[in-house]
Amino acid sequence: MNHLPSWNDGPSKDAILDFVARVSHGDSPDFVPVSERIACFDNDGTLWCEFPMQTQVFFAFAQLANIVEKSPDLKEKQPYKAFLEHDTATIHALGKKAVFEFAFATHAGMTVDEFADIARSWFETARNPKLDRLFVKCVYQPQVELLALLRENGFKTFIVSGGGIDLIRAFAELAYGIPPEQVVGSSVKTAFEAAGKLVSLRKLAELRSFDDREEKVVNIGLHIGRRPIFVFGNSDGDLAMMRYALAGQGPRLAMLVHHDDAEREFAYDRDFKLSPLTEALDNAAAYGIRVVSMARDRKEVFVA
Amino acid sequence: MNHLPSWNDGPSKDAILDFVARVSHGDSPDFVPVSERIACFDNDGTLWCEFPMQTQVFFAFAQLANIVEKSPDLKEKQPYKAFLEHDTATIHALGKKAVFEFAFATHAGMTVDEFADIARSWFETARNPKLDRLFVKCVYQPQVELLALLRENGFKTFIVSGGGIDLIRAFAELAYGIPPEQVVGSSVKTAFEAAGKLVSLRKLAELRSFDDREEKVVNIGLHIGRRPIFVFGNSDGDLAMMRYALAGQGPRLAMLVHHDDAEREFAYDRDFKLSPLTEALDNAAAYGIRVVSMARDRKEVFVA
Repeated sequence: MNHLPSWNDGPSKDAILDFVARVSHGDSPDFVPVSERIACFDNDGTLWCEFPMQTQVFFAFAQLANIVEKSPDLKEKQPYKAFLEHDTATIHALGKKAVFEFAFATHAGMTVDEFADIARSWFETARNPKLDRLFVKCVYQPQVELLALLRENGFKTFIVSGGGIDLIRAFAELAYGIPPEQVVGSSVKTAFEAAGKLVSLRKLAELRSFDDREEKVVNIGLHIGRRPIFVFGNSDGDLAMMRYALAGQGPRLAMLVHHDDAEREFAYDRDFKLSPLTEALDNAAAYGIRVVSMARDRKEVFVA
Repeated sequence: MNHLPSWNDGPSKDAILDFVARVSHGDSPDFVPVSERIACFDNDGTLWCEFPMQTQVFFAFAQLANIVEKSPDLKEKQPYKAFLEHDTATIHALGKKAVFEFAFATHAGMTVDEFADIARSWFETARNPKLDRLFVKCVYQPQVELLALLRENGFKTFIVSGGGIDLIRAFAELAYGIPPEQVVGSSVKTAFEAAGKLVSLRKLAELRSFDDREEKVVNIGLHIGRRPIFVFGNSDGDLAMMRYALAGQGPRLAMLVHHDDAEREFAYDRDFKLSPLTEALDNAAAYGIRVVSMARDRKEVFVA
């Protein structure tokens, strides 16, 4: 059978196929019971494109338009101004946490059901301006094949992302086959509201968890309650969960996407302020993390 | 086929079988896609016995013995004294949240892996003193059959409990077939720790979430991200999630165990200070919640 057809032959593909075979064959010394086959994937930059900014930020642009219509005085205030003008340099300079926290706050006041409707309808037409593709078509075909291969071999696949948990849930089942309850992400606090037969959860402006770096491991503990045996990421924000996986007993695999393909996608690492790749790249070998090259390892980049 | 053999024939059993058939038959007007078949169960008093105190409290007794060995001056302090003396009246008077928060704090300083080992080993011999049964044998046989029936019909079954998430995870897969990632519960904050090849999560003394009442709905939003279509509880602490389920569109079922079987188990409701059943019982009909009688509806009570 031709597994992973959009991956080029080479050490990355071999490492995946070898790992999956070792943990899933009953007579393998590295056999892992199905219930322990937990795989965690970062989303932005790992399962889909995150350049020039994460989709979360583009979604915030759209939400802000509604907000400043009601409060026009915000138009000249930062960071509203930068978001409204799609001022990439100013936004990047804020750093990932500040940008995401601001983006999440644009949803305050909606119920989670209202948010899901808005997000799903936005995804129908919203496009990455640099690639001129629908965001939902900026998903990486090789990763969709990898997710399927893992699930065929008894793995449960999770997203563990710095992105907003509800935004990812609005498209992850269709795009990746990952249901809402297997999405871990950043989140704001919510409030229970009941008025007669209307019972809902309302999103508040206050951050509950920014799911990045060490917090990814904390949230894996909270949501999953087991140590993953497979982790795939692409930035320093994923290093802690890679180390957590690798520190467990038995077979482990941690992979790191390196965006080195300016021709078909983008080439960036250390200087990408919204999600730098520095420490994880410099220490990959020492930690036992395999670096996957977008340029060399991928036959296809995006889903059709 | 004889479904639910440990349930007596009657309206409760009929309601379950009817609901499951309506949502899962492709030609039913009430058909619900598999991905939306989310069922949430409270644990203490719903899936297993919670009397005279929740298992969480008995587990804390055992942990406290270790703590006061190191700090003997605590022996005379409250609530240590009450826990050490198994002083039910004093413990009940504290109320559920205070008791559970104190119980959770006895695990502070352990890694989640250490905690899991201690809990699993405790469950091997720990017994409910009133029933003189192993705690893991205080699981209700009719509910184990119901969980299996739901899963056979495409439901994903979750626990949503005020109990500590890690304690439930230590036995739920074996007892109920519910894996750790489908357990939602109360939790303390944890800290990521890395020292060379040792990478772990350490439990802190600070509460993250007390998963009771409205907070159960908040945590369903966080962990599951969908509105359940089936909820089973036994106390006022489950009313909010029942209302949340019932407020959704399409077929819904919410059931409430009433502990009215002093002969085979225990009879209690309003006066059980650690988890009273008052508002949910008084308003069950108004909310459309079905009350299940332990005495009338159950042929068998406990697992063999």
